[in-house]
Amino acid sequence: MLEHGGRLRAAAQRYGIAEADWLDLSTGIAPYGWELPAIPASAWARLPELEDGLEAAAREYYGCASLLPVAGSQAAIQALPRLREGCRVGVISPCYAEHAHAWRREGHELEELDAATAERELERFDVVLVVNPSNPTGQRLAPETLLAWRERLAQRGGWLLVDEAFMDCTPEQSLAGHCPLPGLVVLRSFGKFFGLAGIRLGFVLAEPKLLESLHEWLGPWAVSGPARALAKTLLQDEDGQQRQRQSLLRDGQHLENLLRDCGLAPTGGTALFQWLACDDAAALHEFLAARGILTRLFARPSSLRFGLPPDEAGWARLRQALLDYFKECP
Amino acid sequence: MLEHGGRLRAAAQRYGIAEADWLDLSTGIAPYGWELPAIPASAWARLPELEDGLEAAAREYYGCASLLPVAGSQAAIQALPRLREGCRVGVISPCYAEHAHAWRREGHELEELDAATAERELERFDVVLVVNPSNPTGQRLAPETLLAWRERLAQRGGWLLVDEAFMDCTPEQSLAGHCPLPGLVVLRSFGKFFGLAGIRLGFVLAEPKLLESLHEWLGPWAVSGPARALAKTLLQDEDGQQRQRQSLLRDGQHLENLLRDCGLAPTGGTALFQWLACDDAAALHEFLAARGILTRLFARPSSLRFGLPPDEAGWARLRQALLDYFKECP
Repeated sequence: MLEHGGRLRAAAQRYGIAEADWLDLSTGIAPYGWELPAIPASAWARLPELEDGLEAAAREYYGCASLLPVAGSQAAIQALPRLREGCRVGVISPCYAEHAHAWRREGHELEELDAATAERELERFDVVLVVNPSNPTGQRLAPETLLAWRERLAQRGGWLLVDEAFMDCTPEQSLAGHCPLPGLVVLRSFGKFFGLAGIRLGFVLAEPKLLESLHEWLGPWAVSGPARALAKTLLQDEDGQQRQRQSLLRDGQHLENLLRDCGLAPTGGTALFQWLACDDAAALHEFLAARGILTRLFARPSSLRFGLPPDEAGWARLRQALLDYFKECP
Repeated sequence: MLEHGGRLRAAAQRYGIAEADWLDLSTGIAPYGWELPAIPASAWARLPELEDGLEAAAREYYGCASLLPVAGSQAAIQALPRLREGCRVGVISPCYAEHAHAWRREGHELEELDAATAERELERFDVVLVVNPSNPTGQRLAPETLLAWRERLAQRGGWLLVDEAFMDCTPEQSLAGHCPLPGLVVLRSFGKFFGLAGIRLGFVLAEPKLLESLHEWLGPWAVSGPARALAKTLLQDEDGQQRQRQSLLRDGQHLENLLRDCGLAPTGGTALFQWLACDDAAALHEFLAARGILTRLFARPSSLRFGLPPDEAGWARLRQALLDYFKECP
């Protein structure tokens, strides 16, 4: 099992700080969101059924007629490598590690690619995998670039797999509206933007035939009834989405400014996180953790990812800790 | 995708009867259960973490120290065949079709076995699969019998896989308390007994090493946060479980009597369903469906499964429809 953010229980034990006392910035999940609507009792009691309105709401939200709800984009990340015979996979790196892990585990041949040079090497691969915007670097690839790659891959029966887990604040940069297209597979996460990581819901946007295979592989009732009911309501709430988008964009900017003000100018980021590549990432991680602030440390490249604080107290606490770090380790 | 009960939407379309007007007896899920406890907001908002109290509550409830929560026993049914190299699998038949489907799909060699003669043929198989009590026949195998099979299989590195989806009303017949033992894998469904089929939760009871492989295969965050929170509370509610057990056993008996009174003596059953093997199963299924009563039809052997009605009105409606059938098709 790979390392991930959000492991507050482990952090509490390691640093001897009670779970409730942490400021958890270790994930890229919105720290606020919706007043949760009531969930009908039948959503808990009955087996979930398809086309209960969730798919329709999602088609509208993503602007794509062909999609499949899955139990978190993680479910799709694990299943997609099982739908292809052993092939050559290029991963634009660095990126979210579960992708490479999943393809390697299924025996595919994996190679890391640099976004800047990938274009020249496309013909060597059957599948090219991009997290866009990238997690943790925040790097973005333009839709036109990706669409051109998609075309070249599709000509040889290849796939362009685009994980848009952090795309909801910038829908104009999404490929969702271009789906379905041959060879194009777009993954969307529901929990990150909507602030509901516990719900386990994501969507795969692709051609119907590929979705059929994926559905067959994942089996019946993959997504829980309550998740379906709740997501249907939130995907229809355009005003709420607009408010959430504005809040996250504002706070993402705020986080970038705060880090910069503290002498830690981010290397990249999105509305939901900022990424800081620096040699002393491990030391900064420890310094913050000792003060009950959990960030996500990456070893390669040496870097830290900061999620958004949930409230004023959280912002103040982060600012103070960073100023202290600057004072003690200038 | 295999056929299943609970597909009310499809039935509503096929028979032109609004979803709300159906009496759905097509599943073996408890039609009543708990007043749902409040779910903490953090269960929705945060990534689920292991050992949040759910595993501890489940260990207590099942009487087994080594278990893994999964997103419905269906998740385990699909994953287990992927943890073994191609092997010979014997399935005590007839039984819930997803098992055979999952093993076949992974290229294993499958053979149907009769419970009465399986004992003599055990040495021919690497994995023997039993749904106990069986769905839909209600047939039970004694714990001593299964433990003896387990020992013979384990000696050759084989598995005895026991799906105890319908065991909660008769815990004294469960193998849960015997787990972990080499080669023994027990599946438990949470939603059926607790009346929460939408929750997508089940447990696998087995040796830690096998559970590690399964966990690695299923990946992180397989079970949703709300499911974990809710199940933890219900698994700790021994009084509620006692009440639920009594109600289901009483209603199961009631259903058996009702069918018998109407000249349709069940062939077998459990507290949660009764099973009726008869040549006119398809005709009876249609007759009831035309009256908005959905049962589960099996073609081989020709048979019907009846779940429990949820309330007095449901019982009266079923009785009347069966009496009418008897009158019209004596």
